[in-house]
Amino acid sequence: MKKKPIDHLKERLVEISHLVSILNLLNWDREVYMPKKGSDPRSVAIAHLSGIIHNKMIALDQDGLLSGLKKQLDEKKLKGKDAVIVTETWRTFDRERKLPEDFVRKLAETASMAQDVWAEAREKNDFKLFLPWLKKIVDLKKKEAELVGFSDSPYDALLDAYEPDLTSREASEVLNDLKDFLVPFLKKIRASKEGLDPSKLKGKFPLDKQIAFNEMLSKAIGFDFEAGRLDQSTHPFTTNFHPGDVRITTRYDDNDIIYSLGSTIHETGHALYEQGLPIEHFGTPLSESVSLGIHESQSRLWENNIGRSKPFWRYLYPILCKEFPEPFSKTPLDEFYKIINKVEPSLIRTQADEVTYNLHIIIRFEIEKEMIEGTIDLADLPQIWRAKVKEYLGIEVPNDKEGILQDVHWSAGLIGYFPTYSLGNLYAAQLYATMKKKIPNLAGEIAVGKFKEINVWLRENIHMHGKTFTARDLIKRATGEYLNSRFFNNYLEEKYGEIYSMK
Amino acid sequence: MKKKPIDHLKERLVEISHLVSILNLLNWDREVYMPKKGSDPRSVAIAHLSGIIHNKMIALDQDGLLSGLKKQLDEKKLKGKDAVIVTETWRTFDRERKLPEDFVRKLAETASMAQDVWAEAREKNDFKLFLPWLKKIVDLKKKEAELVGFSDSPYDALLDAYEPDLTSREASEVLNDLKDFLVPFLKKIRASKEGLDPSKLKGKFPLDKQIAFNEMLSKAIGFDFEAGRLDQSTHPFTTNFHPGDVRITTRYDDNDIIYSLGSTIHETGHALYEQGLPIEHFGTPLSESVSLGIHESQSRLWENNIGRSKPFWRYLYPILCKEFPEPFSKTPLDEFYKIINKVEPSLIRTQADEVTYNLHIIIRFEIEKEMIEGTIDLADLPQIWRAKVKEYLGIEVPNDKEGILQDVHWSAGLIGYFPTYSLGNLYAAQLYATMKKKIPNLAGEIAVGKFKEINVWLRENIHMHGKTFTARDLIKRATGEYLNSRFFNNYLEEKYGEIYSMK
Repeated sequence: MKKKPIDHLKERLVEISHLVSILNLLNWDREVYMPKKGSDPRSVAIAHLSGIIHNKMIALDQDGLLSGLKKQLDEKKLKGKDAVIVTETWRTFDRERKLPEDFVRKLAETASMAQDVWAEAREKNDFKLFLPWLKKIVDLKKKEAELVGFSDSPYDALLDAYEPDLTSREASEVLNDLKDFLVPFLKKIRASKEGLDPSKLKGKFPLDKQIAFNEMLSKAIGFDFEAGRLDQSTHPFTTNFHPGDVRITTRYDDNDIIYSLGSTIHETGHALYEQGLPIEHFGTPLSESVSLGIHESQSRLWENNIGRSKPFWRYLYPILCKEFPEPFSKTPLDEFYKIINKVEPSLIRTQADEVTYNLHIIIRFEIEKEMIEGTIDLADLPQIWRAKVKEYLGIEVPNDKEGILQDVHWSAGLIGYFPTYSLGNLYAAQLYATMKKKIPNLAGEIAVGKFKEINVWLRENIHMHGKTFTARDLIKRATGEYLNSRFFNNYLEEKYGEIYSMK
Repeated sequence: MKKKPIDHLKERLVEISHLVSILNLLNWDREVYMPKKGSDPRSVAIAHLSGIIHNKMIALDQDGLLSGLKKQLDEKKLKGKDAVIVTETWRTFDRERKLPEDFVRKLAETASMAQDVWAEAREKNDFKLFLPWLKKIVDLKKKEAELVGFSDSPYDALLDAYEPDLTSREASEVLNDLKDFLVPFLKKIRASKEGLDPSKLKGKFPLDKQIAFNEMLSKAIGFDFEAGRLDQSTHPFTTNFHPGDVRITTRYDDNDIIYSLGSTIHETGHALYEQGLPIEHFGTPLSESVSLGIHESQSRLWENNIGRSKPFWRYLYPILCKEFPEPFSKTPLDEFYKIINKVEPSLIRTQADEVTYNLHIIIRFEIEKEMIEGTIDLADLPQIWRAKVKEYLGIEVPNDKEGILQDVHWSAGLIGYFPTYSLGNLYAAQLYATMKKKIPNLAGEIAVGKFKEINVWLRENIHMHGKTFTARDLIKRATGEYLNSRFFNNYLEEKYGEIYSMK
């Protein structure tokens, strides 16, 4: 029997996915185990492999294979899974073919150099050093938007790479709603007089004991160590080769075990999504995560909605106290819970609490949208940054190192990426609120360290679908509502109303 | 200015080398860090990448690039480095293109399955289970020899893949000389009455202390940890991505630190060769090791000629005793030195001492040569094995598990590989004898832990040349003589004559 075009397409997709897995291994190894002198040749190896993958992507349409299937799709001749595969493959292919190879190489090279300059500029607290490189990056990203095409804002074309189908108008609306809630809410919290002392949780935590505790926790939550690893890296991340090999990293501070636990729970959330994708469809969009925002919702749900909740620490705190009586036994659970949820406006996004975090994102989103739309002078960025931080967070920015220069993203060409962090928080709140209704005695289960039903629910409602539905439809199916900030605002009001006695 | 054909060739070679480095990373990761469920997809990823590399190899002659250069070479129009590059690239290319893709796939698949069957057969001590698969492998390797071509014995075509240019006639001659010396020499040693008790060196060695000690030792010898790593794996090995990233592994036994040190020194020897290749020629044969035999000479030189010498332990034993007073402080250096050099015929090759090791290899060499020449019935192998072990080593083989079934090589399709282990020992002895003449006070330097001059000498005489010379010429240039067993025999006579008071 002759093989059908869709089967040919799947074969090619599977090969590409294996090559992407290899690329992910090269990057994982670079962050985790590669010796210093491996660096430059590794970049070259990555560039070669990326080139091969690009060519294989383009070759999806060799002999008109993909366009033929796209035609069938447009004529409604494809159904079910096949339709999803062609729709989503076309989306990626279409973007890829619109970007000429020399443009992609130019962007990669510029971003690689810009990251070095950025690191130096941050080190030296010298925005002017970075400015010409930021200009190059922004120009290239504007060019990318033009090449890809857009109807409303060029920012749409960039956002689409990370959160497919979401327009910048929609993102603006939901993030504006969020801001309108957060700014006054933060003021109320700051006016309350709850004194919380995080230094009580500091101590001496030997590395091997920290590693063992983090592995125990990740496993307890549901991470399958036969299908993954937990290692260390400067910046925690999750990478996946396929659902049978998903690797997370965390970081350790000798004096602060809470620091590592937060990262580990967060990355475990990402990993559970990757381990939960249907392996039988590996290689096709049916086994791929749907968007960065949905991915982030899985990490945030575990890190914040569950991992910073009172029931969760009813379960974990006794274990933590037993393992590390010093320093924890002197702090009661209630106080511990309030300390780890302390709200305090701060300069650095990655250290921000649940309430202020999204204001950091909104600042970046507003700025990068204007950068791409060309309604802002890049030289003014440090001042604009200071003004927004003052307005939204109520604090002064003492230097650019802890201001405009703190994040690597723009230097790496990642523009349109930041909003997905906040979308993740909003999606997570929608999912958590739904889960509370659907899973009987959710808090009780969490309080005894039983996470199975949560994982089953997430698998059935999110993970197993891969890209079968868009993020928009997936969240509607799972929670009954489209993306909005109401669930998140309610969540914050309830949780922090209690912590800061504002009810 | 138009680029010259040789520069085009170099560009293609560099890309292939980067892809081979990636393949090496995939294999390294599989042995060292990959979780269990990563296994099957990893094999598929490796197969895909291998296919890409094969196609790129074949594409070296796209537009007649490589054949054109080969023609120039044959007409003596290429000189120096360019001539080396074309000669050696042609050697690899010519072999590659003679093996059709479906033959290569068939061999890889058969070997993969045969290894599983072999593991089961060894486990069950059941040679008959393995026999049909060994037949398949041998038939395929005969076919490979036919496809590659040979003038004298088909075994030449297989040996050539590991030790280019060496004929099986030459290998037979030198290994026969070696056997003629070893068999009576071993009898003399066994007749002597030196009582040595290895159990005195057993103790309790915590893993973290063992790791630290092995890293210290590897570094002291010259391993550059900025250009490599030391990890753990079931079977120690060295892999290289380029001279800036060379990775070794070792294995640990809780009760025996000497066990790990031997492996670590051995792999460090391999690694120093790889780290010493000229990085500026990366990708071309000028930056590739010359043969497996020469590679093994680097590991054996460090492991045995240096690493089991009295001067070496004058340096290391006090450090070992300080770190592990229990059990070592009760054994004086002289006794320790004799114990770690104890000669005792044994069944397992990988645990053999310097004297009996090569007899294990000679047995395998004699058998595999006949397997390929078709002068032996494979069903008789267990008996043939027993007879040879009895004749050469003087001991009885109680079962096939510790006999014919002990090594993975044949099941993996590695026929023609074994002799390179012994060639390594012979080359090492030639090099060590020469070094003794060239480096003033060699023993004195070693006895105070100074290895720099050894590394400089090896780099200048072996490492930096890559494939500029064949193994045959390289050893002649370095030592003044072609490969022979005299140096090794003299080395053993002197060393063991003293240990066993046979002078």
